[in-house]
Amino acid sequence: MSPEEFRAAGHNVVDWLADFLARPEAVKVLSRARPGELIDRLPASAPDRPESISAIMADFESQIVPALTHWNHPGFMAYFATSSSGPGILAEMLTAGLNVNGILWKTSPGLTELEQVTLDWLRQWLGLPPETFGIIFDTASTSSMHAIAAAREAKAPEVHAAGGVTDLILYCSEQAHSSIEKGAIAIGIGQKNVRKISVDREFRMDSAALERAITQDIDAGLRPFCVVATIGTTSTTSIDPVNEIANIAERFGMWLHVDAAYAGSAAIVPELQPLLAGWERADSIVMNPHKWLFVPLDLSVLYTRRPDILRRAFSLVPEYLRTQENPRALNYMEYGIPLGRRFRALKLWFVMRYYGRDQAAGMIRDQLAMAREFAAWIVADDRFEISAPFPFSVVCFRLKGPNEANETLMHKVNDGGDVFLSHTVLHGQFVIRLAIGNMATRREHVLRAWQRISENAPYNEAS
Amino acid sequence: MSPEEFRAAGHNVVDWLADFLARPEAVKVLSRARPGELIDRLPASAPDRPESISAIMADFESQIVPALTHWNHPGFMAYFATSSSGPGILAEMLTAGLNVNGILWKTSPGLTELEQVTLDWLRQWLGLPPETFGIIFDTASTSSMHAIAAAREAKAPEVHAAGGVTDLILYCSEQAHSSIEKGAIAIGIGQKNVRKISVDREFRMDSAALERAITQDIDAGLRPFCVVATIGTTSTTSIDPVNEIANIAERFGMWLHVDAAYAGSAAIVPELQPLLAGWERADSIVMNPHKWLFVPLDLSVLYTRRPDILRRAFSLVPEYLRTQENPRALNYMEYGIPLGRRFRALKLWFVMRYYGRDQAAGMIRDQLAMAREFAAWIVADDRFEISAPFPFSVVCFRLKGPNEANETLMHKVNDGGDVFLSHTVLHGQFVIRLAIGNMATRREHVLRAWQRISENAPYNEAS
Repeated sequence: MSPEEFRAAGHNVVDWLADFLARPEAVKVLSRARPGELIDRLPASAPDRPESISAIMADFESQIVPALTHWNHPGFMAYFATSSSGPGILAEMLTAGLNVNGILWKTSPGLTELEQVTLDWLRQWLGLPPETFGIIFDTASTSSMHAIAAAREAKAPEVHAAGGVTDLILYCSEQAHSSIEKGAIAIGIGQKNVRKISVDREFRMDSAALERAITQDIDAGLRPFCVVATIGTTSTTSIDPVNEIANIAERFGMWLHVDAAYAGSAAIVPELQPLLAGWERADSIVMNPHKWLFVPLDLSVLYTRRPDILRRAFSLVPEYLRTQENPRALNYMEYGIPLGRRFRALKLWFVMRYYGRDQAAGMIRDQLAMAREFAAWIVADDRFEISAPFPFSVVCFRLKGPNEANETLMHKVNDGGDVFLSHTVLHGQFVIRLAIGNMATRREHVLRAWQRISENAPYNEAS
Repeated sequence: MSPEEFRAAGHNVVDWLADFLARPEAVKVLSRARPGELIDRLPASAPDRPESISAIMADFESQIVPALTHWNHPGFMAYFATSSSGPGILAEMLTAGLNVNGILWKTSPGLTELEQVTLDWLRQWLGLPPETFGIIFDTASTSSMHAIAAAREAKAPEVHAAGGVTDLILYCSEQAHSSIEKGAIAIGIGQKNVRKISVDREFRMDSAALERAITQDIDAGLRPFCVVATIGTTSTTSIDPVNEIANIAERFGMWLHVDAAYAGSAAIVPELQPLLAGWERADSIVMNPHKWLFVPLDLSVLYTRRPDILRRAFSLVPEYLRTQENPRALNYMEYGIPLGRRFRALKLWFVMRYYGRDQAAGMIRDQLAMAREFAAWIVADDRFEISAPFPFSVVCFRLKGPNEANETLMHKVNDGGDVFLSHTVLHGQFVIRLAIGNMATRREHVLRAWQRISENAPYNEAS
């Protein structure tokens, strides 16, 4: 493609995106596609001969866009809502065009150093200690797997050379994200060595139960090596008692990993920092700017106070990547599995500068306020009940009544096409989640979601 | 950022990129930056107040671009050269703007189905069997780690629940990529359980030595579970005898993983497919369209004929992600560590359609021809020698003489700023690698590289 063809096509794509961002509700938030429908529509084979970019764009609009569920839609209130902000998209355009790769410092110094700079900027916004080291991975699942591997390296360095052991025990709450268990299985800890500690009525880890479990395991000759505390669990955004857990981790010489993939971003709001108290004591933390910090997918940050351990777990430098040692030249490939590294820091740099802390914090504040207002509407309606505390921007609620009624309600709302809600199960009860987090979501969208919920809810179910 | 501000800024970014692509040599390929230089220049903290996009872009141009080593430069001939093609960049712009996330089929059906479609299209181009399943990860290191974990699941399913074992043995050649050993360490196989099999004079795994090693390990009561064959090793692009290795893997009931991260793309050229003979017998294959198929970073494909095993190794579905079962609704999160999934397939779809197979194959053919011509110049000059066969687009060569002279030569060439070469070490000898793979690289650039090499090489070293 000649630069001039790229220029013309690029302008068209920018116009398409600007129109899309101007009228996000022109598309249904939840795709109507049936399983296999797009597969059946597209050709069974790629072409031998070139096709024009206008033909590709036409198919993109007519075939692909309707088959998508639109995360960048103000009515997207499922899972954890995300935002692809304008400055983030602009940075991704540059990242794609430059196509630089930060395997080593030398392979593109500015990529590595901007990652160091932006992660230190973000560390300051989050109120974490100055000695914290940061590294970008694709997703929180990947970040947490690396954290658990570092925890293993700290407690059982013999595994590195000799292979797995069957006596290392990891603890998390029964509300922890599945990625913790998956990571432990992947690195060979074993599913049966993951202890899911019970939670209190507010879905927070019971630290007394944690301590009992650890003691029992030690008595049985096992080795507790890692505890994962969550700030903002996926089901309800509950907050484990991090300080109590940190005390226990210290006492038993265990690695403390904090999963704040979603809620970590809240710490840029000064008055919300107390909600995250204790996380500064963690050995490692995962938080995802691509979730709640207006950065496009994917950008997950793993912070650790013990980069030496992470490096010991993952450093392996072949001859073709050996470079002159320089204490200021950081080779990120020594701190994880991926060698190739996209220039992800650029979008974080654009977003942090374009909004600044005050405006970014303001957007999060507004989203919390919308969530609280929505919760108040739920509380004021006798048909409904709140199912869990809502310290952040996710509200869990349900119709008083059977699970089936709640499931039906959720599907009816989602079928409308302008709101997308997801669910969880708490104490055997089907619970609907409304997650605010897209920067295009305004009060009117939350109000409309409430109207859809209210008008689809049976009137005499509860009383 | 309002849609209209985005539109204006987006047009500026497209113009910047078009100018960059029109004059890629306006920048030095290898950055002059000193370690820490960019860090020292940038502010120590992010701003509290918003900054304008024009201020950010100005700093991008003046501070960031000079600090980068430019992989999208026609003089980039280090490591494995990559290309960020026009259609690939356009698709990445859309991916960033849509910001859809393919955790599950339901979370954005078109993302999942376009991944299935494009990976099947690519499978056909590569000549792999119809039953092959494909999944996209960020990098080859991540893909290979998943493959090794699947191999473990196949041989020792008890590890999933019980934790690691110390008797599983993995085999690869001493020329295999470091990611194989790193992946084995990460999942708890143990570094001492990775057998690096010797290679022949052409840097291909010695299959007789492989068989001896396996037999010895079995005699010692150990369990050979996986062998990794490489097609296109990182140092020299050598090709392991895949069919012989597949025979051995079959005989001993081992998983065969083929690392074709770089050279796999060559299989889209019909007359090059014999170079990859045997890979269709592999249990899993990694190949990276972001390396040699004109797709921007990152897009690595893991193909496997045994998706059931991969799924068994990685499936873990929490309640909040449970959806109605439908045999045509594929949930990719069950096949790997990452839950969040960028819309990476879109760029592969754009690139495959825009070029079509004939033109994409033609570009690879041209790059092979340039590599052969460069090698002929080396052969014709008495001062130099070829250090390894060059079946693909990478030529390994050296000055006849001491290592220091070769290292000096490489640094002199790289200091020129218009060519970037990397090195490896073979049999203790420092060897220079010239890797052709950027689509902007023309014969004139290879000729210039040769001129830089020739003019910086001492004249009487060899004779």
